[in-house]
Amino acid sequence: VTARVGVVGATGYAGSECVRWLLGHPEVEVEAVVSRRAGTRLGDAIPSLFGLTDLVIEEFDAARLARLDAVFLATPHGAAADLARALDASGAPLVIDLAADHRLDPGWTYGQPEWNAEAIRGARRIAAPGCFATAIEMAAAPLVRAKAVKGPLFVSAATGSTGSGASPSEATHHPERFANLRAYKVLSHQHVPEVKALLARVGGGAAPDLHFVPLSAPLDRGILATVFATVDEGLDVGALFAEAYRGKPLVRVRDGSPEVRHVRGTALADVAAFRDGSAAVGLCALDNLGKGAASQAVQCLNLRLGLPVETGLLAVPCTP
Amino acid sequence: VTARVGVVGATGYAGSECVRWLLGHPEVEVEAVVSRRAGTRLGDAIPSLFGLTDLVIEEFDAARLARLDAVFLATPHGAAADLARALDASGAPLVIDLAADHRLDPGWTYGQPEWNAEAIRGARRIAAPGCFATAIEMAAAPLVRAKAVKGPLFVSAATGSTGSGASPSEATHHPERFANLRAYKVLSHQHVPEVKALLARVGGGAAPDLHFVPLSAPLDRGILATVFATVDEGLDVGALFAEAYRGKPLVRVRDGSPEVRHVRGTALADVAAFRDGSAAVGLCALDNLGKGAASQAVQCLNLRLGLPVETGLLAVPCTP
Amino acid sequence: VTARVGVVGATGYAGSECVRWLLGHPEVEVEAVVSRRAGTRLGDAIPSLFGLTDLVIEEFDAARLARLDAVFLATPHGAAADLARALDASGAPLVIDLAADHRLDPGWTYGQPEWNAEAIRGARRIAAPGCFATAIEMAAAPLVRAKAVKGPLFVSAATGSTGSGASPSEATHHPERFANLRAYKVLSHQHVPEVKALLARVGGGAAPDLHFVPLSAPLDRGILATVFATVDEGLDVGALFAEAYRGKPLVRVRDGSPEVRHVRGTALADVAAFRDGSAAVGLCALDNLGKGAASQAVQCLNLRLGLPVETGLLAVPCTP
Amino acid sequence: VTARVGVVGATGYAGSECVRWLLGHPEVEVEAVVSRRAGTRLGDAIPSLFGLTDLVIEEFDAARLARLDAVFLATPHGAAADLARALDASGAPLVIDLAADHRLDPGWTYGQPEWNAEAIRGARRIAAPGCFATAIEMAAAPLVRAKAVKGPLFVSAATGSTGSGASPSEATHHPERFANLRAYKVLSHQHVPEVKALLARVGGGAAPDLHFVPLSAPLDRGILATVFATVDEGLDVGALFAEAYRGKPLVRVRDGSPEVRHVRGTALADVAAFRDGSAAVGLCALDNLGKGAASQAVQCLNLRLGLPVETGLLAVPCTP
Repeated sequence: VTARVGVVGATGYAGSECVRWLLGHPEVEVEAVVSRRAGTRLGDAIPSLFGLTDLVIEEFDAARLARLDAVFLATPHGAAADLARALDASGAPLVIDLAADHRLDPGWTYGQPEWNAEAIRGARRIAAPGCFATAIEMAAAPLVRAKAVKGPLFVSAATGSTGSGASPSEATHHPERFANLRAYKVLSHQHVPEVKALLARVGGGAAPDLHFVPLSAPLDRGILATVFATVDEGLDVGALFAEAYRGKPLVRVRDGSPEVRHVRGTALADVAAFRDGSAAVGLCALDNLGKGAASQAVQCLNLRLGLPVETGLLAVPCTP
Repeated sequence: VTARVGVVGATGYAGSECVRWLLGHPEVEVEAVVSRRAGTRLGDAIPSLFGLTDLVIEEFDAARLARLDAVFLATPHGAAADLARALDASGAPLVIDLAADHRLDPGWTYGQPEWNAEAIRGARRIAAPGCFATAIEMAAAPLVRAKAVKGPLFVSAATGSTGSGASPSEATHHPERFANLRAYKVLSHQHVPEVKALLARVGGGAAPDLHFVPLSAPLDRGILATVFATVDEGLDVGALFAEAYRGKPLVRVRDGSPEVRHVRGTALADVAAFRDGSAAVGLCALDNLGKGAASQAVQCLNLRLGLPVETGLLAVPCTP
Repeated sequence: VTARVGVVGATGYAGSECVRWLLGHPEVEVEAVVSRRAGTRLGDAIPSLFGLTDLVIEEFDAARLARLDAVFLATPHGAAADLARALDASGAPLVIDLAADHRLDPGWTYGQPEWNAEAIRGARRIAAPGCFATAIEMAAAPLVRAKAVKGPLFVSAATGSTGSGASPSEATHHPERFANLRAYKVLSHQHVPEVKALLARVGGGAAPDLHFVPLSAPLDRGILATVFATVDEGLDVGALFAEAYRGKPLVRVRDGSPEVRHVRGTALADVAAFRDGSAAVGLCALDNLGKGAASQAVQCLNLRLGLPVETGLLAVPCTP
Repeated sequence: VTARVGVVGATGYAGSECVRWLLGHPEVEVEAVVSRRAGTRLGDAIPSLFGLTDLVIEEFDAARLARLDAVFLATPHGAAADLARALDASGAPLVIDLAADHRLDPGWTYGQPEWNAEAIRGARRIAAPGCFATAIEMAAAPLVRAKAVKGPLFVSAATGSTGSGASPSEATHHPERFANLRAYKVLSHQHVPEVKALLARVGGGAAPDLHFVPLSAPLDRGILATVFATVDEGLDVGALFAEAYRGKPLVRVRDGSPEVRHVRGTALADVAAFRDGSAAVGLCALDNLGKGAASQAVQCLNLRLGLPVETGLLAVPCTP
């Protein structure tokens, strides 16, 4: 075992998925799981883990966690900043935050392993991207890196209900979500700034304009992002994608459309690119709790530890 | 117009469906809708009704409601008893309660129109059956009436999520309900006593033993009930069902299995019966918010008003 | 009764929904239903109609159908042209084709009631729009009419599985569709030309460039279309939509996002518009078998008959 | 590596899931995958495996397959008998058939690892149980073994659509399955005889009467079985289940209802028992393609190889 780790927020969706990936990771030992349900066995709090782990939930104890090789923060947005400060004060060697709190913070490294690997390898404070952000970045970055985009990007992305977290709410009330499609936060979603920041870095210039409409879709897990761009006629967008993701074991460049079912429960991102005249389309399908959250955070750990980025993350997915 | 009516609890699921049926009823005028959101237009509170009605939600006012020809109570279980007392005190001529509060109350008439029509026609206080109860009664009563049942009834019934009401909760959190099947209240569901009471009346004797396992199914509307009984070999269960429901315009006796899709959004109950040796099975599919709640309450109103029981309730359903 | 009508293709999804709306229409009598299942009762072929109609399916007989006031063609794409020729030869007074065969045919009138009513009122051959086409047109036309659009339109629209018809196929195999999101026919969908033709007429000039990515979504009925456009900063897109749809009883301009659930099983289209800087978004939710197919064809009939456009089409929808 | 294996029918649902489990199995090497799509890369035929395996589909070659340590047959029911004879003729050391063809064949061993382990360890021809059969057996066998059941068993079980296989059909057409519940093969399902045979062996006597109603549920994977039995009042059914499954690593005895979500994609069976008076209920949730098919076949291989039964089968499941 290379690393002893802890997960804070282990009974939320991102946190419990983090534990899932880490329990199956050959170089990691999960030493501590933290949530408001301290004292409960993790397998009782998370029924799918019943019988599969002996972990017991603990209170947050910065000093204890700081002695571990890495701490994952998977708390609701807003709660992570205070916890991170406490871990700083206790000298924690590595903190990976899955919440939104530090993604634009200059003291933190943006944890997008395909597009920011070099920085992640040397980082001690890593802010893992949001789920929508990851999907949009994967579908847009190859075009931006090639400086092929003229004018704004228009983006639509549809998401499953787990993206809203484990707490019941109107937007995730089953009768309202079932058989429904709706947009929300039209042109005003809070993930856009981190996407623009990454794309600016990737493109080596100013961030492109980017206009985003998120959709609530009637499924539990998965995001499909559609990025529209205006490019030069004749541009070989397929080649750009193939080149961008060559040697990236967790990204699959598909010929047809990526499909959410093909990545469900996995750490994979499936992408594809299309062009007709000057209109280009980049597509990305991923599991919002996998590549969009927990497994991407584990990718960051792998990079930091010097392991192959896919270590512990290539479980064979369900076939239908 | 034959009747001016009011609906209390008009922004809950049963209540808003009650309004839906009543707005389309040729002999009814909806005069008052009541809920905690007084002052709001009903079309703003219930988005599917936006633009289709000018009704504005009111406070509960027993004196005003008592002047109407009928009042529907569609409040959460437990709240209806107090409201009913206030309507009594104001001399309301007809109260139809969709909640569970009065179903076993001797001062109220059980509102099952296929099996208790005579009593309903003369009633001033009607307690409409629960959704599971209705489905089980429709599938079991023909056998019980024929005194064909030996030993206990074993019942399984699966329901959609609207049965749990409009308030978000863990059991109706979309990620937990999606792609899931689970039992709950195994052998201890609160609807059993009203079913046994009706079956005792129908069978003219003691209530049969009845053991019930409810299932949560991953859909929004609909119940499928399966009733197992031991009967004489050779019994023609199909004939019993055909006879029991002859001339009942809202019950369809099917050759194959009833299907929830065929009754979705309707006031219909589809039933069928099967036998193999001494094992008999009665099946019933209905919409838990239609025949299982709101449209059944309107059936009771029709009976009380001396109208054909299906008046306003035979809208042609969606075909796929 | 104002009109006696026939429906060809009555056991397909669009055809059976056509029958559904026509059976509930106060000015229409359905005299003939035609499909390959001649001799079968319609209520046996379409189980949700069981017990609700005595219609029996007939063979296609052009002479008989031509004596009716109107014939609806709801056959698979490609089959309608021959049938229409036979009806022409028999002197049928009014043919409304729901298939794609005649939508760009100069001898036929494009049946989009909100944007082409004048022509429909005088037409004897009406080609009803496709489901995606309708949704995109409703979301884009107010901007195009105002000549507000600069550069191309980018369009994403997600659809339910009934859009693929009643015949089982890989794309509608339940295990593949369930919990899935995928794009298809990226930038190459066959509905785009009819949309461009309508928008050219609405805008009084050349058709705008329009780039379309359709998505398969995991629900049965409904489309949500998202149209991105570049416009002048400061443009009041909400006012454009309100003005465009004032007095259109089957279109609802919403403040927030339209939702597929709010129009399920209805003849309604819900629309909304948003703008941020120079990026505008038009949204439309409709039922692909209602406003996207069958009920829109009935709207055309209403216009042709001189009836209010919403006659028989304002059934109160389900509330949750 | 302990065993080199082949999978026939590798592009069907049970077969591809077999491959999934075997690819992740530490003691197995998949040497051959066979289906009608010979020459195609498995990752192209099964899109979720794209990029994760280099296997290429082959023609059925009995001689080649007979040289492997084990062959899994996952063909449609009816096709397996001929293939098994060819493998017999070539001297194949171990054949595990997932189809129904050999489950009642005295020359084959019934592959139910929790209830027939001893026989499986010595078997060279193993017929893995059906999905419904497994779920019912897990929920009924503890009661039967204790000779606690009086009179017949009544069983309801609801299944996901993958149980019907990879070929599109009416019963798995998405618009018909979506939001639907229906029964089928009421009291006449073909899995009952194998269940009765196993229960007879477990109970050491005659098979109990067993009356089964299968339900089609609107999800892709998973079965929930409900078994009703009449027992002595006072019987501690929970203790019977706990004892029956003690030391069985792939069975989890739950306090509340088992849930399909908790076993989705896993090799686990979750069970629970309840009693009220003389009515007992056994419940089992499993993944019809996991414990109900592919992973159970791999359990049989593990037993035959002398490995711990759960080897390669304890991947940590998704948490929401």
